[in-house]
Amino acid sequence: MNLKPLADRVIVKPAPAEEKTKGGLYIPDTGKEKPQYGEVVAVGEGKVADNGQLVQMQVKAGDKVLYGKYSGTEVHVEGEDYLIMRESDIFAILG
Amino acid sequence: MNLKPLADRVIVKPAPAEEKTKGGLYIPDTGKEKPQYGEVVAVGEGKVADNGQLVQMQVKAGDKVLYGKYSGTEVHVEGEDYLIMRESDIFAILG
Amino acid sequence: MNLKPLADRVIVKPAPAEEKTKGGLYIPDTGKEKPQYGEVVAVGEGKVADNGQLVQMQVKAGDKVLYGKYSGTEVHVEGEDYLIMRESDIFAILG
Amino acid sequence: MNLKPLADRVIVKPAPAEEKTKGGLYIPDTGKEKPQYGEVVAVGEGKVADNGQLVQMQVKAGDKVLYGKYSGTEVHVEGEDYLIMRESDIFAILG
Amino acid sequence: MNLKPLADRVIVKPAPAEEKTKGGLYIPDTGKEKPQYGEVVAVGEGKVADNGQLVQMQVKAGDKVLYGKYSGTEVHVEGEDYLIMRESDIFAILG
Amino acid sequence: MNLKPLADRVIVKPAPAEEKTKGGLYIPDTGKEKPQYGEVVAVGEGKVADNGQLVQMQVKAGDKVLYGKYSGTEVHVEGEDYLIMRESDIFAILG
Amino acid sequence: MNLKPLADRVIVKPAPAEEKTKGGLYIPDTGKEKPQYGEVVAVGEGKVADNGQLVQMQVKAGDKVLYGKYSGTEVHVEGEDYLIMRESDIFAILG
Repeated sequence: MNLKPLADRVIVKPAPAEEKTKGGLYIPDTGKEKPQYGEVVAVGEGKVADNGQLVQMQVKAGDKVLYGKYSGTEVHVEGEDYLIMRESDIFAILG
Repeated sequence: MNLKPLADRVIVKPAPAEEKTKGGLYIPDTGKEKPQYGEVVAVGEGKVADNGQLVQMQVKAGDKVLYGKYSGTEVHVEGEDYLIMRESDIFAILG
Repeated sequence: MNLKPLADRVIVKPAPAEEKTKGGLYIPDTGKEKPQYGEVVAVGEGKVADNGQLVQMQVKAGDKVLYGKYSGTEVHVEGEDYLIMRESDIFAILG
Repeated sequence: MNLKPLADRVIVKPAPAEEKTKGGLYIPDTGKEKPQYGEVVAVGEGKVADNGQLVQMQVKAGDKVLYGKYSGTEVHVEGEDYLIMRESDIFAILG
Repeated sequence: MNLKPLADRVIVKPAPAEEKTKGGLYIPDTGKEKPQYGEVVAVGEGKVADNGQLVQMQVKAGDKVLYGKYSGTEVHVEGEDYLIMRESDIFAILG
Repeated sequence: MNLKPLADRVIVKPAPAEEKTKGGLYIPDTGKEKPQYGEVVAVGEGKVADNGQLVQMQVKAGDKVLYGKYSGTEVHVEGEDYLIMRESDIFAILG
Repeated sequence: MNLKPLADRVIVKPAPAEEKTKGGLYIPDTGKEKPQYGEVVAVGEGKVADNGQLVQMQVKAGDKVLYGKYSGTEVHVEGEDYLIMRESDIFAILG
């Protein structure tokens, strides 16, 4: 995919609603229609701290992540739906 | 559990509502239905301060903690319910 | 008591409403039902400043303190009621 | 008085509503019932700046001060009424 | 006048509503009743920056200033009305 | 004009609504009644950063600028109308 | 174009609603009327950080960018419509 997120933004490919991860993770019923689980496909270079220093990203492309139900902005690229969100919208990485 | 929280997030396994700790701690009646007491099962690496420096976590896996009644986001992993919250949502550690 | 407050939190044992301190301090009538006076029973290690430095606590266990009427969260431990609040909710120490 | 204010807090003894200072200062009619003029009786050690440094207080015990009409919290000590406020609630010192 | 403003506060003597400055400045009709133009009579020592450093004041006693219509708190000293405001409420100095 | 703006404030002479710049810039119909285009006539010395350092202004007297429709406070000086606004209210300089 | 954006502002030429990029990117139906995709035509010199340091821009003129649907202020220059927005309103660069 040819989108390069800016700052501390992350592009995530949401998992299909019916998907169930190997680790047995699934999203509670109330979250079924818009899953909170996905895979990171691209990350920005990080946020600039108040002192002008770059803060490294903690997630990387390929990470399976859990994120807030209302996080991110939907974008449609090459026939697929993605979400662009800030790294702070990501709760945890599925290890 | 295979979830790695990001930044200053903590994953907590809430105690059953009827549970009573050894120390005699219990949550007042108004808190019964959704207990404010639980055990930390995973912690992030810490928050990045305004100067770009990492702030160490004060809680660790295994800590019994007290937290705000409306803290955290519920997540269901391998048949169990957990809460993902920020460390600042935790009031105290039961020593 | 076996609760260790996190960050700049303080655990206070509120004084009984009828109590009158040696110094003659008492709370005005409007404050009678939920006293604003109590004794500190445990303190956290302090808040982390914006530059990542630890800010020492000014109150310590045993201090008699005056605090805002709506400060803190109630918690019941070993048959007693306590309040968990931030140090910034404490107005003054009764010397 | 045996109350030691915390941080940048100040304890003020409000002047009686009918009082008129030597300098001829008096509070406009709309302010009569709860005077905005008083004497500082105790001060805290100062606020901790964002970099963890202590900021010295500008007022001291004995200063006659002018403060906002709705500033501070009332407290009754040894038969007298006082106000506990932050130094930033004080507008000016009557020299 | 014997009032010493604290921090970045300024005491201003508002110009009479009918006054017209030499430079030809006057306040539009909507501002007539409570003029936005006055003379500085006293200034504080300045605000303390986030790093604990003192920020010098830009206005001084004697400066003719323009300020926001709803800026400041009215105070009556020795038979005269003044406004106490923060330096940031002052828009410009009439040179 | 004899007004010296404080801090990061700028005094702007708004262009007449019917004016059309050489570069062909004009404001869309919805902005006709109160133009968003004008010329800087005076600038302050800059804002003081959180560390007490002065931040230089980017605009100077004579710059043609584009600003938000609801930016600034109107002031009438020597028979002319001006706007006093902060530099951050200015979007761009017409080069 | 002769507009020089201030600080961290960016001027973007929005793509026509019907445009489809080479990479196959298009905006979902709900976004058709006001496209979120465009080309950067001018950038400011960057934002000044809290410590007075200049933070470099990440986008440059010529970049194809994706931005929030309600981002920016419309401006009409030399017969064309542009948007002036802050760099933080830009989500990603189409590489």
